[in-house]
Amino acid sequence: MRRIRLFLSPGDVADGILQGHLLVAIDVLRASTTICQALVSGARDILPVAEIEEAKRLAESLGREKTLLCGEREGRIIPGFDLGNSPLEYTPEKVKDKTLVMCTTNGTALLARLGSGGEALIAGFVNAGTATRYLLRNKNDVAILCAGLLGQFSLEDAVCGGMLVAGLERRRKVSLSDGAVAGKLLYKRLAKNLPGMLQSTHHGAYLAGLGFGQDLEFASRTDACEVLPVFREGRITKGE
Amino acid sequence: MRRIRLFLSPGDVADGILQGHLLVAIDVLRASTTICQALVSGARDILPVAEIEEAKRLAESLGREKTLLCGEREGRIIPGFDLGNSPLEYTPEKVKDKTLVMCTTNGTALLARLGSGGEALIAGFVNAGTATRYLLRNKNDVAILCAGLLGQFSLEDAVCGGMLVAGLERRRKVSLSDGAVAGKLLYKRLAKNLPGMLQSTHHGAYLAGLGFGQDLEFASRTDACEVLPVFREGRITKGE
Repeated sequence: MRRIRLFLSPGDVADGILQGHLLVAIDVLRASTTICQALVSGARDILPVAEIEEAKRLAESLGREKTLLCGEREGRIIPGFDLGNSPLEYTPEKVKDKTLVMCTTNGTALLARLGSGGEALIAGFVNAGTATRYLLRNKNDVAILCAGLLGQFSLEDAVCGGMLVAGLERRRKVSLSDGAVAGKLLYKRLAKNLPGMLQSTHHGAYLAGLGFGQDLEFASRTDACEVLPVFREGRITKGE
Repeated sequence: MRRIRLFLSPGDVADGILQGHLLVAIDVLRASTTICQALVSGARDILPVAEIEEAKRLAESLGREKTLLCGEREGRIIPGFDLGNSPLEYTPEKVKDKTLVMCTTNGTALLARLGSGGEALIAGFVNAGTATRYLLRNKNDVAILCAGLLGQFSLEDAVCGGMLVAGLERRRKVSLSDGAVAGKLLYKRLAKNLPGMLQSTHHGAYLAGLGFGQDLEFASRTDACEVLPVFREGRITKGE
């Protein structure tokens, strides 16, 4: 039977445990949401990078005219960068045909850790339907990785992971890990009011306090972006 | 406001994050349950140890006539040890007035990691009421640590942690971490059938397959043991 695992925190992922799985990376607040919006707005590709200096060097080497430096620390735009991590900034005017070098605390750090050999889909509420349909067309076991917040559990990523689990289970009999069961139950309990759930979380409340309340509303719009960001060979592009 | 944090997986606990918190360690299957039962049966004290060889040396140095070697690997009694990790083995005939040197994969490993300077209560469903009453008499922030299974999330520990959170929240206004919210919601959803929940989990199914099905039923008996195991200076004894 197809196995669906949900890793609720990045620390749950032990060495070698992901082998043979189709990977899905989730960082609802905000990298997943921002990446979806950037691709919808016509960004050419996105290069996730863990460290600020590495991002600067990479953007320099690619040529600054076609490249944007994007990312945050503690929720705020990194000094000297072109864009922060609010999906609302990623308009076609700013990002169309650009390569985005992106450095965020949780989401892109998770991808960078998968290494240049790693492959993963990127999902949030905004593209949950598209991601689920892709996963249903494939037969591999699935491992859903929550980015969390500074290495710790964050409710919004677990609920989004649970939404994918619920979608996969609806169509076919699958075997769920304990984390997948937990995510599914949390999603079912909280699905009716995703904006309220986002406001209630530690990360959501923090971002609202910084003035990013609109980002929460945007991140909760289920299926607002029909896009499937795929991380492969160190780059995120639109999947088929 | 009093802060209640629930760490759903051992990997969520970052350095220094627990300082100033009253700690509660949970390993429903089975160390918490077995430790409660051992103390109810009159064991003098329990010394949690991470490694098998260390356990043997410690038992030897204490004198084997007053000491029992207890523990498991992959759920089964360690070869040459006196008792495994099934609470049903811990009868007064076997453990009364004995010092138990205990070496289990998840629960006692978690305590051993807290070090000889660490202090924690130990809780499972069997003593959840006693543990909650103790926590309500104290005013410190609370950090509940789930032992999990081989470093990963296990549903039964999250649900038990959620039971404590729900008990603490009932009496007084508290501030909950995302993990505490998740645990509480999972507990509320699954509280009606704890034996069924335990059977459904990865660890529960594994233990049932080894022939320990009765342990699951025992571990689900809420408030069967009115005892408060306290880990302090490397030893577990009955708290007041």
